Amino acid sequence: MVAEIIAVGSELLTAQRLDTNSLYLTDQLNGLGVELVTKCVIGDDRERLAEAVRRAVCHSQIVIITGGLGPTEDDVTRDAVALALDRRQRFHDEISDQLEQRFRQMGRKMAEVNKRQAFIIEGAEILPNDRGTAPGQWIDESGASIMLLPGPPHELKAMFARQCLPRLERRAPKLVIRSLVLRVAGMGESDLDQLIAPVYKKYENPATTILAAAGDIQVHLRARCVDEPEALALLAEVGGPIEQLLGDRIYSRNGDPLEAVAGELLRRSGATLCIAESLTGGLLAERITSVPGSSDYFEGGFVTYSRRLKTELLGVSEATLELFGAVSKETAEAMAVGARKRAGTTYALAVTGVAGPGQGGEKVPVGTVYAALAGVNGTRTANRQFMGDRDRIRQFTCQMALDLLRRQILGL
Amino acid sequence: MVAEIIAVGSELLTAQRLDTNSLYLTDQLNGLGVELVTKCVIGDDRERLAEAVRRAVCHSQIVIITGGLGPTEDDVTRDAVALALDRRQRFHDEISDQLEQRFRQMGRKMAEVNKRQAFIIEGAEILPNDRGTAPGQWIDESGASIMLLPGPPHELKAMFARQCLPRLERRAPKLVIRSLVLRVAGMGESDLDQLIAPVYKKYENPATTILAAAGDIQVHLRARCVDEPEALALLAEVGGPIEQLLGDRIYSRNGDPLEAVAGELLRRSGATLCIAESLTGGLLAERITSVPGSSDYFEGGFVTYSRRLKTELLGVSEATLELFGAVSKETAEAMAVGARKRAGTTYALAVTGVAGPGQGGEKVPVGTVYAALAGVNGTRTANRQFMGDRDRIRQFTCQMALDLLRRQILGL
Repeated sequence: MVAEIIAVGSELLTAQRLDTNSLYLTDQLNGLGVELVTKCVIGDDRERLAEAVRRAVCHSQIVIITGGLGPTEDDVTRDAVALALDRRQRFHDEISDQLEQRFRQMGRKMAEVNKRQAFIIEGAEILPNDRGTAPGQWIDESGASIMLLPGPPHELKAMFARQCLPRLERRAPKLVIRSLVLRVAGMGESDLDQLIAPVYKKYENPATTILAAAGDIQVHLRARCVDEPEALALLAEVGGPIEQLLGDRIYSRNGDPLEAVAGELLRRSGATLCIAESLTGGLLAERITSVPGSSDYFEGGFVTYSRRLKTELLGVSEATLELFGAVSKETAEAMAVGARKRAGTTYALAVTGVAGPGQGGEKVPVGTVYAALAGVNGTRTANRQFMGDRDRIRQFTCQMALDLLRRQILGL
Repeated sequence: MVAEIIAVGSELLTAQRLDTNSLYLTDQLNGLGVELVTKCVIGDDRERLAEAVRRAVCHSQIVIITGGLGPTEDDVTRDAVALALDRRQRFHDEISDQLEQRFRQMGRKMAEVNKRQAFIIEGAEILPNDRGTAPGQWIDESGASIMLLPGPPHELKAMFARQCLPRLERRAPKLVIRSLVLRVAGMGESDLDQLIAPVYKKYENPATTILAAAGDIQVHLRARCVDEPEALALLAEVGGPIEQLLGDRIYSRNGDPLEAVAGELLRRSGATLCIAESLTGGLLAERITSVPGSSDYFEGGFVTYSRRLKTELLGVSEATLELFGAVSKETAEAMAVGARKRAGTTYALAVTGVAGPGQGGEKVPVGTVYAALAGVNGTRTANRQFMGDRDRIRQFTCQMALDLLRRQILGL
């Protein structure tokens, strides 16, 4: 059973945008043991899209078309698929009514063009969209299942998970795929690969993939077997030695990001956290609060982007700033201690550094970063020299700070 | 003259990798006035790739195939193109000799498999590769130019720039592409489309595309003409009336995001800014500081995620929180006024609301958001009811807050 993904939208054919929905869909399809054999991007062109759909239906048992379901003239997916399959479309009053109601709830009047979204291809099953206005459609045609899904990622993911996965699970052949995901902090990609390659290179199954982001490496092991016990045994055989080699640098075994892992450690120990951040300018707090339920342990904190606010809000002394500089171990410590005192939390996590592109008046090079964690038993610090652009240095910094917190709570 | 890009490689069909070479190629093609009409990713499958090449040659005058030129069995591009065009391949001694020399220079012996890279399709021009081992190939066939380029980005870019661009410039008709990008805040996609569709629908050139993100819509107009004056005149003819209709909801005409536009307004007026954020948990500050040079006007601020910190750090009275709730106009105002007083800035921008998934103990529904801006002449507020998941509601909120700031400085 093989699949093809067609992403629709002229904006995806510009030099600025990529179709990223296909990554999510690929992951989901692979989880069912279904292989993706082609993916395409087609502009807002009815005939060209219709041709691509016709071809895909001949070659693949699963054809997923994303985007182009909006209300405007540009949105050609409904028409193109109807053309490709030589089917008519029918206006559904109940969909139109639901759309109008949705707009009323938002206190707005529905634009007339939105009625276009109430057209459904004959014989299609309607896939409800509880996150947006465009309903999806599922069509079975000559041995292939064709899905029309909305382009916005949050709409697409919800619809695929709730509507398409259950249908596909009933159709897919019984091959079991089981994965082990190890997430690792504080290590470079090539160092990690050099360490674990002698283990995983001996195996084709499970397949091993290494994904590197700033300060965050994922090792994916993926076993495809006839049953679950066999898949789990294979994962243990290869994953065990890899876990031994990486040790406590592994922070998560279930895919959770570091902010979720650190947050769970705080929750379990009944501790609270505040932050004081300079170069990351809100990113550290943003990552911590991106976890639903983070209000259980995260109280808030301070973004002290200017020198002045480091003094006025956190009480970092002018002398410390003068003597050691705003980017120093001493300033990071004073920020953490000051934040903890003012916010009254168990821990305070502080970062200061130079994200670039300029040095911002500091004497240290771009990429110099200090983190400090203040707690009941004093302050612990870390410092690093990172490489990369502004965005990457800010990401590295958050990862380093969160790992400092994790290690402290775990007593590492 | 239209183009198609085919990226070859099974690794590009995994959930971890995207073909990014196409972004560079698209930019280069657009610069020549050539439009990209399709892009595909095909795995390491000779027959499937041959079919894609056959189809592309029928539809497009330029077909660029990237990757699959390496020395291993997986590298099927040469064979697939030869099959598609029904041409033979010939072994070139001089290429094989160059490869051997290259390996010698690196102090290594060439593996026997590398000789596969010395095969060239009959009638092809050889495109030398000075950054890697795989030579490229250029084939003219029935009105189409087909390019076989290596997958590694640095090899591909050098080869395309030095070998392909000069050849394409000789063939491409002299067409100029000029764009107008309008970014709009505070309007839904369908409302916007209903407003401006009567203008842009009358024109095929310039082509109009509408891109919607949370609270942020982009209108792209793209004119293709024989010379620049004609392209600019067309953009003015269509863009002018659209700009009139959208009025001051347009915040940028050069692609700049709202945080950069608001920042530039602050810089020009010599004003400074601090923030106080609740539901966005750092995202508002993060967006503001994502702009290089934002330290010129952004001082920092407060993430007051808990009720307690709204009182302790910002001085929001217990009475206000009790009477109106943490998510209310009154609390937003008190947060802004308190933050401005403590940080000593010209403006303070505050947001409070419910991002979900739960209501977090508030009495208002998920998606309820209040923003307040405190300045010299008092406080201005805005409130909205947004739809979507946690992430989207946080994005909507930042956009609404930044637009409140923009409108205040511009006196709108």
